[in-house]
Amino acid sequence: MPDKNVLVIGGGVAGLSAAIDLARLGVGVELVEKADALGGHARQFSCKATEKCVRCGACVVEEKLRDALEHSNISVSLNSEIQKLTKSGGRFSAELQKKDGESRTSETDAIILATGFRAFDPENKKPYGYKLFDNVITNLELERMLREKSIVSRPSDQQMPKKIAFVQCVGSRDSKLGNLWCSKICCGSALRMARLIKMRQPETEITFFHIDVQTFGRDFQTFYEAAQNEVRMVRAIPGDVFKTDDDGLKVSCFDNSAQENVDEIFDLLVLSVGITPGRDTKNLSALLNLKTTDTGFFEASQEGIFTAGAALGPMSIAEAVASAGYAACEALNYLDIQKNWELG
Amino acid sequence: MPDKNVLVIGGGVAGLSAAIDLARLGVGVELVEKADALGGHARQFSCKATEKCVRCGACVVEEKLRDALEHSNISVSLNSEIQKLTKSGGRFSAELQKKDGESRTSETDAIILATGFRAFDPENKKPYGYKLFDNVITNLELERMLREKSIVSRPSDQQMPKKIAFVQCVGSRDSKLGNLWCSKICCGSALRMARLIKMRQPETEITFFHIDVQTFGRDFQTFYEAAQNEVRMVRAIPGDVFKTDDDGLKVSCFDNSAQENVDEIFDLLVLSVGITPGRDTKNLSALLNLKTTDTGFFEASQEGIFTAGAALGPMSIAEAVASAGYAACEALNYLDIQKNWELG
Repeated sequence: MPDKNVLVIGGGVAGLSAAIDLARLGVGVELVEKADALGGHARQFSCKATEKCVRCGACVVEEKLRDALEHSNISVSLNSEIQKLTKSGGRFSAELQKKDGESRTSETDAIILATGFRAFDPENKKPYGYKLFDNVITNLELERMLREKSIVSRPSDQQMPKKIAFVQCVGSRDSKLGNLWCSKICCGSALRMARLIKMRQPETEITFFHIDVQTFGRDFQTFYEAAQNEVRMVRAIPGDVFKTDDDGLKVSCFDNSAQENVDEIFDLLVLSVGITPGRDTKNLSALLNLKTTDTGFFEASQEGIFTAGAALGPMSIAEAVASAGYAACEALNYLDIQKNWELG
Repeated sequence: MPDKNVLVIGGGVAGLSAAIDLARLGVGVELVEKADALGGHARQFSCKATEKCVRCGACVVEEKLRDALEHSNISVSLNSEIQKLTKSGGRFSAELQKKDGESRTSETDAIILATGFRAFDPENKKPYGYKLFDNVITNLELERMLREKSIVSRPSDQQMPKKIAFVQCVGSRDSKLGNLWCSKICCGSALRMARLIKMRQPETEITFFHIDVQTFGRDFQTFYEAAQNEVRMVRAIPGDVFKTDDDGLKVSCFDNSAQENVDEIFDLLVLSVGITPGRDTKNLSALLNLKTTDTGFFEASQEGIFTAGAALGPMSIAEAVASAGYAACEALNYLDIQKNWELG
């Protein structure tokens, strides 16, 4: 049995990755996830390879899931949340409660906090008509659709849409909402999905409403030049969306190039929703006595508690894995230091 | 005396930061720098605070310099380069040569590689007339000017320029040059300098030629809205630059909003040059038997050698510090593992 134990809170890609890194170095890991499955948001993402891999990272999650479930140093508790945390003699004591009410106490030497993010709820951006109009979906719903069905269809009639519009920055870079940050990863995931759709459904016309394209990848320019041949890039963010009689969506926006208001009808609207602090951040922050930044994400680390992944702020899957590696590394060093103190 | 030693190659902000992290945990550090001073590129950067700190990171370098020079576990060798590296029994033996020809051997348990980046040389982008026209300077030269003199003047006549243009993406996102990546940090540093100049020399008109603004910081939107009130943002990259009779610069570009070619005369042109792999990357890659990526930057780590900072690719000062923390953390764990092997 491992002589040191770490509690990992959150079973998304960052939590899984930190758990595996620690387990491989001989640490015992208890992985606690409040949902009924591991994998977090990223588990619903679709591979976006066109002619070749575009390094979207979606496959990383499955690899991490497999590795975590296979490792004997990792035990998983689903449907579980932390109710209370105390620290004494350099160790933590966490009270865990299952959804069915069952509760127990877990003793641990350190904690990895990998509670992820909450996707911005576009019902808070009323003019886009999310939930009111069937054919307005989020980028996360599109990920799921591509993953499950490979092709894109309109929710209202299951027909293949002829004209799709992506609307970027929904709930990001928005002073009115107080969400001042850029969510960073949405340009990359939306443009990759757009190119994937063009490959599978080449008749589709795709429009990309955006403010500034956030670059990604070492060969960004090659990718982007190809994307610009396939996708109509419009530097504008729509103001209002109206439903037409045949379930189309009339999008109204100010076109900067043309310097005029333009209305255009699409069959499907994809809202790229922002990355906001996880739902439990406030609770956990009080429970763990952990600081948050002015934007509501967690600070990096604090006396035996090490934060990883999108709980720190918007980041890609690759960045979440790197950040989990760093958190695991810090935890390992912390455990060694603890050990030295005990000896000294 | 510390019982474990790490050789840090490169005394820029990443190397300094890794050295300090390791020294504080009891590791002996030899910091080797080929130039005649520590601090790397970032040492020439100017604080860009306007009403308040804008988190540009320039002050971090001085803090790191002070901390590194004060720590008794860190010894510094300037004007020194690695000539040869061998590994035996889990330890490295590095042959170091000074510029004056003096050479010696250093034994070490692990290596941090923090050799930084090379700024793109804008003489390779001939139409901009760098070196031909006095009043075409780089963003790095502007950093130095702001740091040393606080105000901006034209090199040709030392007068304060009335009209300044920033040209972004010089040597980045450029298929013709084969530099396909975005250098990521130039938008942030150039816009921060632009706002600083507007505060100190409010009569100056500033134009910002760019492709896509790469966002930065948790309160990006607030910063950017203020910047847009002070700086004219033009989504275009100039094609040609010509000198006028009075040392002005006629900039020619295609204005997308107006859909026409526009000529405009500026007093000073600031080229935001790209971040490219360090000059020694190829040599060191062969010497250390270290892989590089297809873009020519170093891979993250390899058997006792841990890479930090912009040697990995374009990154901000804050990211370089975080990356150095990760490299130091990995090195510490590696040293422990080595220790266990020796015991086992």
